[in-house]
Amino acid sequence: MAYQALTRLYVEAPLSAGAEIALDDQQAHYLQHVLRLAPGAEIALFNGSDGEWAARIEAFGRKGGSARLLSQRRAPRPEPDLWLLFAPLKRARIDYLVEKATELGVSAIWPVYTARTVVERLNLDRLRAHAREAAEQTERLHLPEIHPAEDLAKLLARWAPDRPLLVCDESGAAPPIAAALGARAPGPWAVLVGPEGGFTDMELDGLRNLPFVCAVGLGPRVLRADTAAIAALALLQAHLGDWRAGRGA
Amino acid sequence: MAYQALTRLYVEAPLSAGAEIALDDQQAHYLQHVLRLAPGAEIALFNGSDGEWAARIEAFGRKGGSARLLSQRRAPRPEPDLWLLFAPLKRARIDYLVEKATELGVSAIWPVYTARTVVERLNLDRLRAHAREAAEQTERLHLPEIHPAEDLAKLLARWAPDRPLLVCDESGAAPPIAAALGARAPGPWAVLVGPEGGFTDMELDGLRNLPFVCAVGLGPRVLRADTAAIAALALLQAHLGDWRAGRGA
Repeated sequence: MAYQALTRLYVEAPLSAGAEIALDDQQAHYLQHVLRLAPGAEIALFNGSDGEWAARIEAFGRKGGSARLLSQRRAPRPEPDLWLLFAPLKRARIDYLVEKATELGVSAIWPVYTARTVVERLNLDRLRAHAREAAEQTERLHLPEIHPAEDLAKLLARWAPDRPLLVCDESGAAPPIAAALGARAPGPWAVLVGPEGGFTDMELDGLRNLPFVCAVGLGPRVLRADTAAIAALALLQAHLGDWRAGRGA
Repeated sequence: MAYQALTRLYVEAPLSAGAEIALDDQQAHYLQHVLRLAPGAEIALFNGSDGEWAARIEAFGRKGGSARLLSQRRAPRPEPDLWLLFAPLKRARIDYLVEKATELGVSAIWPVYTARTVVERLNLDRLRAHAREAAEQTERLHLPEIHPAEDLAKLLARWAPDRPLLVCDESGAAPPIAAALGARAPGPWAVLVGPEGGFTDMELDGLRNLPFVCAVGLGPRVLRADTAAIAALALLQAHLGDWRAGRGA
């Protein structure tokens, strides 16, 4: 349990024993004024490629601070290859969805425009900050990649056919998700949820005809887009992803 | 699709053909000033026992309004017998969790105090308003019942043993959720998630020794309590609940 007690922060610098790592303003503020840690206190750092390292806070300056790397706590290891595609939602819901998707192990997030998407300007920096904070809390060693928004059709036109795309289909025509996933194999996957107004019939027909699409139903109630996405990601991880082994794996 | 186009509102009055139903201030305001509906417009009403009815707005007054019932759109039908027990969370997270649990078909919500629960005053009226709004949106015919907070131990002391209690166990010792649920039968179920600080070892030992407890693991990452609850409810509905049939069921 001593493991969990360390505050984890994401940094971009390479991590190696003895290196001094710069902490940005926000990180220094958080450590010094929110957690009330002093130089000498131990934290954990990760950067998406070198695993997780113990580090000692060296100093807080007028801007930012620094930490000295001690030793590696966890070696790098692969994380799930799981994408989330969703039509942009209202601000609070999109923030929440990015947080939840990060906790559920998503490796890439693709905002996509569909026919009924109410286009809002997406603040990618804000979404990336949410993903980073969620990754810090959830003990991940990587951040999910957050891509700029683009048309769904464009993304699907260059889709690698070996990545099945789970489509949450509200029409009632698709098989239930547990049964559908029971017949499928692990590997790279993606989840697509439509906008609050749903897909158009034409979009749904087009999606169903794509050889890599796996359309599934999520029960008799109408789910909000964020709920559908979280449920589908949880089911995928439980059936075909890294929830099949325990915490120790 | 004409079905989905009607705005759904929850009312407490009995529903029968021709009856006039009072709309409260908030409902009248929403219909008149947010949706900009006028008397004569059709809406849908449900009350948790008489199914769903089409109704015509009759009038808006200085306070509230009224609607006349036309015909039943959906007959009453049983909804899942699925409970959620959780330790109170911060305001935004608890509101979100109540919304999601309602969409996922939970029939009763029990806030419970555990050893590490940071007790906050719970505003049950606010939670009930969130559940009501989510039920209106999700096409449910019932509202989940939201109980006052109490000690987990007290609730478990009167637990009906034929209701398995799915416990989200972060220790790494519990079997993965999909495997655990694959061996279980449908029926009344409940999900329990601990507070942000987790269960104490003593609490976990005590829970595991209860004959009705089914402890499961939710993968290698540390999930926030609300994420764990949503994931567990989705898995339960998909494996043993009403997601096993399609929308039309």
